[in-house]
Amino acid sequence: MAAFVSFVSSGPGDPELLTLKAVNRLKNADIVLFDDLSSGPILSFVKKGADLISVGKRANRASPKQHVVSRLLVDCAMRGDQVVRLKSGDGGLFGRLEEEIVALRQAGISYEIIPGVASAFAAAAAAGIPLTRRLTARRLQFVTGHDIEGRLPNDIKFNALADPHATTAVFMGKRTFPQLQQVLEAHGLPADTPAIFVESVSKTDQKITRTSVKELAEHLKGDTSWAPAVILYGPLLDRDSEDEH
Amino acid sequence: MAAFVSFVSSGPGDPELLTLKAVNRLKNADIVLFDDLSSGPILSFVKKGADLISVGKRANRASPKQHVVSRLLVDCAMRGDQVVRLKSGDGGLFGRLEEEIVALRQAGISYEIIPGVASAFAAAAAAGIPLTRRLTARRLQFVTGHDIEGRLPNDIKFNALADPHATTAVFMGKRTFPQLQQVLEAHGLPADTPAIFVESVSKTDQKITRTSVKELAEHLKGDTSWAPAVILYGPLLDRDSEDEH
Repeated sequence: MAAFVSFVSSGPGDPELLTLKAVNRLKNADIVLFDDLSSGPILSFVKKGADLISVGKRANRASPKQHVVSRLLVDCAMRGDQVVRLKSGDGGLFGRLEEEIVALRQAGISYEIIPGVASAFAAAAAAGIPLTRRLTARRLQFVTGHDIEGRLPNDIKFNALADPHATTAVFMGKRTFPQLQQVLEAHGLPADTPAIFVESVSKTDQKITRTSVKELAEHLKGDTSWAPAVILYGPLLDRDSEDEH
Repeated sequence: MAAFVSFVSSGPGDPELLTLKAVNRLKNADIVLFDDLSSGPILSFVKKGADLISVGKRANRASPKQHVVSRLLVDCAMRGDQVVRLKSGDGGLFGRLEEEIVALRQAGISYEIIPGVASAFAAAAAAGIPLTRRLTARRLQFVTGHDIEGRLPNDIKFNALADPHATTAVFMGKRTFPQLQQVLEAHGLPADTPAIFVESVSKTDQKITRTSVKELAEHLKGDTSWAPAVILYGPLLDRDSEDEH
């Protein structure tokens, strides 16, 4: 059998948000390489006897370097087994997919990508709101809150992020948001722009906080937890007080 | 039973890209209101005897007005049945979800939103590439190519869209792309910026064209088909000629 890798997007964490295709690939896998964020109940779909290999990268923990992960992926594929590389959210969004694709190509290994539910969509859904609005939020943008060194990236177009007519989702941005909010305010984003902060998106301990960008920046100052979270800001639809979910 | 509506995201079209939660809601529905783009094999999950109501909106066809759809949704929910409002891609992205949510809130009807796979993620996956790149494409943005009148929206931040360091996905943008590309070039986006044009994303007749923004604009001049398509442009990862899917 020719060497082949399935990049499978696990969605935000709730196993019910896996696609049918992702479940199919997990059930047929002989080897699954997974990240911290796509572990737990999602791995229960994997058949007994399959190899489960954690290559979890989370900023606060010792974890394999990207080139080590890429090398391991190539080695697994060379064994001729059904290899799944499981990535949280949609694997093509801030998932270091490029490095692993390039390693496979260099080794002459074919692959497929199974798209998934990005956590920003699940965060908005949990808050009961759309991510775009026909008249007031025509553009949606996704950015990451830190670069490879854990700092706020300085090569992002801040004017685009300060646009009050776009919805912005910040991934992995908890630690740098106080700094980002200052920069955005200097670029014209009003301090009272609505923000929604969703921790542990779609998981049993999900927590949703409705606030403003300024208040959220204050709240996150000194936050030292590494728990995953998504920040949404922009002309977000209010939560009507009449409304229940 | 209290009136309740499930907004269910159908994903881009391939039924295998439905989430487990979406399938569950479809199986339990008594009434399903669906759009053109989320019909076909996806509806095979709905149980026999359920009411299937097309409220399909596509630019070229006579279809119900939004307020008529919203009214119908409220009426269905009032009957006390399990109501699913099926929306293509992720329902919260350019899906007119806001109008329907507001109608439900005004009628005192509760709802939930099941997020899904947006077609831009499926388009990139089909092309074998990530949507973001760690060093060269740190920002991802989604825009719609036409306003309510079918024209290029004039209140979008074109500077943000002309950023060569972002990946941009244009939804429903076939007809206006020649005009958009001119505007973007005037704002500094190089004419040879890579573009990928994906028609019928994830469906059996999916077609992927690798080109540049300038060539795509030329190609789309005079295109009068309304077939759904996604345009991706930016510093997209090349398709390595060694590579197969």
